[in-house]
Amino acid sequence: MPIQNQGPHFCSDDSDLLSEIMSARRDVRGNRFLADELAQEDIEQIFAAALMAPSVGFSQPWEFITITNRTTKELIADSFFIENEKAKALFQAGKFEVGKLEQYQQLKLEGILESPLNIAVFYNPKNGPVLGQTSMPDMGRYSVVCAIQNMWLKARSLNIGMGWVSILDPIKVKTILNAPQDRELIAYLCLGKVDKVSISPNWKPSSGRKKRHHSRSFFPTATNKIALAHPSIH
Amino acid sequence: MPIQNQGPHFCSDDSDLLSEIMSARRDVRGNRFLADELAQEDIEQIFAAALMAPSVGFSQPWEFITITNRTTKELIADSFFIENEKAKALFQAGKFEVGKLEQYQQLKLEGILESPLNIAVFYNPKNGPVLGQTSMPDMGRYSVVCAIQNMWLKARSLNIGMGWVSILDPIKVKTILNAPQDRELIAYLCLGKVDKVSISPNWKPSSGRKKRHHSRSFFPTATNKIALAHPSIH
Repeated sequence: MPIQNQGPHFCSDDSDLLSEIMSARRDVRGNRFLADELAQEDIEQIFAAALMAPSVGFSQPWEFITITNRTTKELIADSFFIENEKAKALFQAGKFEVGKLEQYQQLKLEGILESPLNIAVFYNPKNGPVLGQTSMPDMGRYSVVCAIQNMWLKARSLNIGMGWVSILDPIKVKTILNAPQDRELIAYLCLGKVDKVSISPNWKPSSGRKKRHHSRSFFPTATNKIALAHPSIH
Repeated sequence: MPIQNQGPHFCSDDSDLLSEIMSARRDVRGNRFLADELAQEDIEQIFAAALMAPSVGFSQPWEFITITNRTTKELIADSFFIENEKAKALFQAGKFEVGKLEQYQQLKLEGILESPLNIAVFYNPKNGPVLGQTSMPDMGRYSVVCAIQNMWLKARSLNIGMGWVSILDPIKVKTILNAPQDRELIAYLCLGKVDKVSISPNWKPSSGRKKRHHSRSFFPTATNKIALAHPSIH
C-alpha cells in the first residue's frame, strides 16, 4: 500500500502472478469467441487499464472506438477478406516459408464478426512538439501500443479473449469509421468471452523456431567488456 | 491452473492485482535510481516477461542489447544532451505549451548514467513478408513495444524502476552500439533499484489536463446506433 508519495511494494507472489497472466495471454480468433455480450463493468476495467499506460510527455494520444454494430463489422470484415487474399497471393508467390502455405490457409486469423465487441484504436497526433517525441517521432504511436498491451493483459486477467487484427487496410477502416483525416489506425481489436484460451500460440511459422534467446551483443569493441561479463544474458 | 490445453482461470483478486501493478508503474528518472547492481535473476525475469509478449506472425522481431559500460553510457548520454538542447530550442521558440518551459527545464528526463543497467531495444525486420504484417507494415515495431510494456510491468512488480529515454538520436545510438544497418532503435531503457517510486507522474504538460475519457465515437451515421447505446462508454 502507498506510504506518503511512495508507491506500493510488491512481493514475489505478486510478481509471479503477473508473469502467469502474461504467459497465459493469447491472440484470440473467431473460433474461440462466444456470442455473449461482455459485462459493462469488464469493458470499463479494460479501458481503465489502457489509461494506466505510459504516454510520451503524458500526451495520451490514444482514441478508442467501440464497434458492436453488425453492419459496421461486416464492412471491416470485407477489408480483412480483401487484404487476406492479397497476403495469400504473396505467400503463394513463394515469398513465404516453405510448407507453411497450407497451414496458413487453414488458420482462422480474426474474429471480427464472432466477437461481441470490436475496438478500433487510433493515434491522435498533437499539433506542435510533444516532450520526448521531438527526436523519435514514432513515440506517440508507441504510447498507443503500450495501452493496447495493458488492455490485452487486463482482458486475459478477466478471462476475456482479445485478438489484434492487422490484416486490414487502415485507410478503409478510417473511412468506415468516419475518422478524422489526421488519425492513424494502430490496432483493430476483437474482444469477447471464450470457450477456452489455448496454451500454445495459434501460429508458429516454423516448427523449429523457438522462443528467441533474449539478449545479444552487437559491439565487437572494448566497450562491450562489461556486457560480456554477464554470460547468461549474452 | 491449466486443464488439458486450456489456460488458467484468474479470479477477481488476480485481476485487481494486475491493475494495481499497472497503476503503480512510473517512468523512472536519474533522480530516483540507486547505484546498486540488479540481481541477475531479476534481469532474467524481466527478459522472460519481454519474451511473453505477442508478436505478429510469431516473428519475435526484438533484439535487446544490455549496456553497463560507463564509456558506452557516456556516449549515449552525449546524444541525449544534444537532442535535449534541440528540444529546448523548439520549446523556447514558443512551440510549447505556455508556462511549461521553466518546469520542463527543471525536469530530470533520463537516468542513463545513474541507472546500473541500460537496455537498447531494436526492431530486427524480416526478409520477406510476415503473416499479419503485409497490410500494416508497422506491426513488427508494435510487437517490440508490447515486449517493452511487459518489461516495464514486470520490473515494477519486482520493485525495480524503469525509464524509457526517447530524447536520443536513434542513428547515433545505432552507431555507438555498432548495430547492423537494418536494425531500428525502438527504445532505450534505464533500469535499477529506486529510493522510491512516486505516485504521481513526472510530467503533466498542463495542470488542467486529466486522464482522458477513454472512448469516443467518430461515426455521425446510422452505423453508430449500437455504439451510442453504451452511454457509459461514449
